[in-house]
Amino acid sequence: MTIKAIGYAANHSFSRLKPLAFERDEPGAGEVQIDILYCGVCHSDIHQAENDWGNTVYPCMPGHEIVGRVARVGAGVARHGVGDLVGVGCMIDSCHQCAPCRAGDEQYCEGPNSWLATYNGPMTPKAKAKTGENQYGCDNTYGGYSNTIVVREDFVLKVPETLPIEAAAPILCAGVTTYSPLKHWGVKPGHKVGIVGLGGLGDMAVKLAKAMGAEVTVFTTTKEKVAEAEKLGATGVAEGDKQAYAVLEKHFDLILSTIPEKHKVDPFLPLLAHGASYVSVGALAQMPGWNHQELIMGRNTIAGSLIGSIAETQEVLDFCAEHGIAPDVQLIPIQEVNEAYKKVKSGDVRFRYVIDMASLKPELEDAA
Amino acid sequence: MTIKAIGYAANHSFSRLKPLAFERDEPGAGEVQIDILYCGVCHSDIHQAENDWGNTVYPCMPGHEIVGRVARVGAGVARHGVGDLVGVGCMIDSCHQCAPCRAGDEQYCEGPNSWLATYNGPMTPKAKAKTGENQYGCDNTYGGYSNTIVVREDFVLKVPETLPIEAAAPILCAGVTTYSPLKHWGVKPGHKVGIVGLGGLGDMAVKLAKAMGAEVTVFTTTKEKVAEAEKLGATGVAEGDKQAYAVLEKHFDLILSTIPEKHKVDPFLPLLAHGASYVSVGALAQMPGWNHQELIMGRNTIAGSLIGSIAETQEVLDFCAEHGIAPDVQLIPIQEVNEAYKKVKSGDVRFRYVIDMASLKPELEDAA
Repeated sequence: MTIKAIGYAANHSFSRLKPLAFERDEPGAGEVQIDILYCGVCHSDIHQAENDWGNTVYPCMPGHEIVGRVARVGAGVARHGVGDLVGVGCMIDSCHQCAPCRAGDEQYCEGPNSWLATYNGPMTPKAKAKTGENQYGCDNTYGGYSNTIVVREDFVLKVPETLPIEAAAPILCAGVTTYSPLKHWGVKPGHKVGIVGLGGLGDMAVKLAKAMGAEVTVFTTTKEKVAEAEKLGATGVAEGDKQAYAVLEKHFDLILSTIPEKHKVDPFLPLLAHGASYVSVGALAQMPGWNHQELIMGRNTIAGSLIGSIAETQEVLDFCAEHGIAPDVQLIPIQEVNEAYKKVKSGDVRFRYVIDMASLKPELEDAA
Repeated sequence: MTIKAIGYAANHSFSRLKPLAFERDEPGAGEVQIDILYCGVCHSDIHQAENDWGNTVYPCMPGHEIVGRVARVGAGVARHGVGDLVGVGCMIDSCHQCAPCRAGDEQYCEGPNSWLATYNGPMTPKAKAKTGENQYGCDNTYGGYSNTIVVREDFVLKVPETLPIEAAAPILCAGVTTYSPLKHWGVKPGHKVGIVGLGGLGDMAVKLAKAMGAEVTVFTTTKEKVAEAEKLGATGVAEGDKQAYAVLEKHFDLILSTIPEKHKVDPFLPLLAHGASYVSVGALAQMPGWNHQELIMGRNTIAGSLIGSIAETQEVLDFCAEHGIAPDVQLIPIQEVNEAYKKVKSGDVRFRYVIDMASLKPELEDAA
């Protein structure tokens, strides 16, 4: 038996997302089925749908900021019960055996297939697999731009009921992707943190760093976002403002770049305090050259960081609930997702688009 | 009163080093005068003499790997006595007040003039200074390619008498420049360390990393140095050997690059284990671009590191004595320093040239 499902998917790198009817496996032992309420729109959804990384399998159904309620549980499920508010982020499985997995860093899984991505992941579903079980392989996972999903319970997060439900979704990627490096690089009260870029990730980065007690400065190429940064309680600096940069020399304990593509790091390196790091989480790209003298003179580092672990994802959900933090979101019906993509690509969007999955109703009725 | 001294200096970026008679201040309170026995030839001497960094003040008298014996001590000197075997490295003073200085990281001094370099440092000697005291300013320091030097005692290191005297000099720069990052990035027994480049720094890096208990691999562009690396007890890999690189994927806990100029890092990033760093200590240069995806996928870093602190310099001298480590050196008379420069620039030299300062005798007699 399989579950009839529907979602929005791209068929080619150049095509718009369109409704796609497909099937999901019934929840097996240790798995839960979730009825999806909301799904965030991440810039990487666009990169993947448009094959910017050259590894997209079509049809491509994005979505890895998923919030919903448990609809059914498979045998032996202990962590989640029917009706629970839960979330699914970027991963739905990993090898569980390599050193990073054993250390609870599943996002750096070194197993033969690395971690299993919520969409565009190489999973052969039960129905097609020779063994009759879900298995890593040559097929494809479908993400959260859909009405329902089935995930093994240890990759399902508990979403605190005190969070605004529709705003919780982006915490599962934008939230943990910025929380993980802020935590790993040891942000403490009084630290000075620079955030480069004020989109969906930048918004969360500012709120989390402030809640950790840091003084936050936002760098943005969009003039209007300087004021937006100040509304968030940060100092706003227009990128390229030489006077502001001069004042900030050797100022930052950490600079976290959320720019989702290649960008110059040289303007920021002189702003790092002794021993501080410039961490870029979004630029899955060939970067332009850098002045290594700057790194030598301050024992500074340029680093990368990838999303966050399952434990960190739960932590950041709880941290947001505790500190009353939520992403700034704008709800859209799924039929407007292609328009939303255009706006995100333009770089003008400061909030996170979140798809209200109730809007899938007409497509579900058509398919029935 | 001043001390008549003689050394070898460059008058222009394009000129050979020639004898230069000059004066040093008598040792003041807290200062010691050292009769120089040996001085190492560092690649940065060449960069500085040829004005590769655009900041050279002429005449430029290089030399910051100095070993000699204390000839005289100023008032209140407590650490060193006449006849003691001592060393002077890259620094002869710092501000003593900034955060890095207070933390014992003088090499990252953030005072108004940063640390005072042993040569090409901005120090106005007593005789010229309005205050009548040595002071940071617009003038110039002269380094160890000379018969004598005067340095404040806390920047003078104790050289263990068990070290081969003529081989101790390169420990003061090549040694500490590689020791400091090996220590800072926590190299431990069983760690896998890659060393890029097998010149004066690479030689010390291999010996120090091995003495710390690491398994060491050397990457070199010079075919003959593969065998040299193996003689040192390391695995030798010819740069660009794709088969060897494939085997070493995700292998290293630390890669330490000693290349003294810009170089591509992309071939090495896939060789970093989860969380590991690529540290370049020599490339005071604009580097070519890098694939940031590699850093993101492994939470890896690219870092810089600058020489080492005074405390670390003493540590590495003692560490070398304890472990019976010494740089491979070739003694030359100072009259051959220009020839030595050519050979170092060619990249073929695996050992460190060390100037035997007894060779200055004819110049001293001429000047007398």
